[in-house]
Amino acid sequence: MILFNRRIVLVRPRDPNNIGAVARAMKNFGFSDLAIVTPHPPVWSEVVSAVNATDVLTNARVCGALDEAITDCNLVVGTTDRTRVEEKQTVYTPFDLSRELAAADYNLALVFGSEKHGLTNEDLSRCHRVMSIPTEPNCPSMNLGQAVAVCCYELIRESAQTSIVPCPAEIATVGATEAALQSLLEVLRLIDFVLPGNEPDLTRRLRGSLLRLNPTKYDIEMLCGMLNRIKRRLQ
Amino acid sequence: MILFNRRIVLVRPRDPNNIGAVARAMKNFGFSDLAIVTPHPPVWSEVVSAVNATDVLTNARVCGALDEAITDCNLVVGTTDRTRVEEKQTVYTPFDLSRELAAADYNLALVFGSEKHGLTNEDLSRCHRVMSIPTEPNCPSMNLGQAVAVCCYELIRESAQTSIVPCPAEIATVGATEAALQSLLEVLRLIDFVLPGNEPDLTRRLRGSLLRLNPTKYDIEMLCGMLNRIKRRLQ
Repeated sequence: MILFNRRIVLVRPRDPNNIGAVARAMKNFGFSDLAIVTPHPPVWSEVVSAVNATDVLTNARVCGALDEAITDCNLVVGTTDRTRVEEKQTVYTPFDLSRELAAADYNLALVFGSEKHGLTNEDLSRCHRVMSIPTEPNCPSMNLGQAVAVCCYELIRESAQTSIVPCPAEIATVGATEAALQSLLEVLRLIDFVLPGNEPDLTRRLRGSLLRLNPTKYDIEMLCGMLNRIKRRLQ
Repeated sequence: MILFNRRIVLVRPRDPNNIGAVARAMKNFGFSDLAIVTPHPPVWSEVVSAVNATDVLTNARVCGALDEAITDCNLVVGTTDRTRVEEKQTVYTPFDLSRELAAADYNLALVFGSEKHGLTNEDLSRCHRVMSIPTEPNCPSMNLGQAVAVCCYELIRESAQTSIVPCPAEIATVGATEAALQSLLEVLRLIDFVLPGNEPDLTRRLRGSLLRLNPTKYDIEMLCGMLNRIKRRLQ
């Protein structure tokens, strides 16, 4: 899923490798709209840190001012580290933002300042919200590429929760697991591990353990193979 | 809050700057326990990418094998990108992991492979769980520092939700906001914007808008100052 109305805006970024890392994180999470406001001169559109996301860099729009990068957006969120926030501001967290976007589908611009100085108060005055990633007070300032990665992750987090990847077809049936258990019990009888008194209790405990392991078909096949081999040697 | 029983393990990392970036992300989110398994030779304990997290690097433990790095842990989670996962595996997401840790406080080792090849099947066989960050199928592989940042963020996310930073004391009272509204209505009457028929409706709409803006004391003072100046000029 590509999210078309989620723009990342970098204001005065200095390090080309950070711009590449931002592009990579965006592409990892399905974002493609990058705007860069007055980047420092060095060529940044071909940096290796972008890895498979050079298309994000190639399509990035270079703007002369923040206004230009956000004019068609209706929710502009400026990021800052918590230590730089004034007392009288309400500071959003990334989860506040994802909740807000879940309720109404804004054209979002998520704005990040330069590596060294962040966004100025002038920049922040152009934002509807000020947002801060909840970092530790003794180390609040994040690497630019990492901050963008965390924010992009948070924005797709809710929708990604449904796409867990279990493969139920590969999990062994209860019947197959029970057959393996019976095979194991045969071996245990051969080595006198099962005594008349403890068989029901032992069976119950082993069955519980086997099921909790959530074995795959392959696990059960391998277990049965091992048990059969042991049985043959013991008999 | 420093989390003592959350270890990050890097297996065969190649790029010293990535190790530094990992240390920085860890410190951003309150993690301090880093173990590095057979890193490539170049000196990595003083890389600049660690920024304020050189202590994490200095205290990092260098291990000769993965076993050594995880022996005292009781939940070992190996990370991989989704395209490399075998059909028969159940793959956890970062939110599955944070739910599991919320239910029981394990000594966690979160294990990341090398930048190029990730973890081997041999490495993954030493893990209780295989976890994958939900990235796009066309760009699944993340930068190492960014992947660690996203995972650390996810692990502190739940506890950080409570620590939003509004400053209720700085928000204007309803009384002050209402006084500003009345001042605005006076100005609107002076410029014949208020007509006998529309005053109640206009008042209601303006009041709603003002309150939704959630103005601070400072906003209201500034608004009243502007309105008073306009009134004086108009009279």
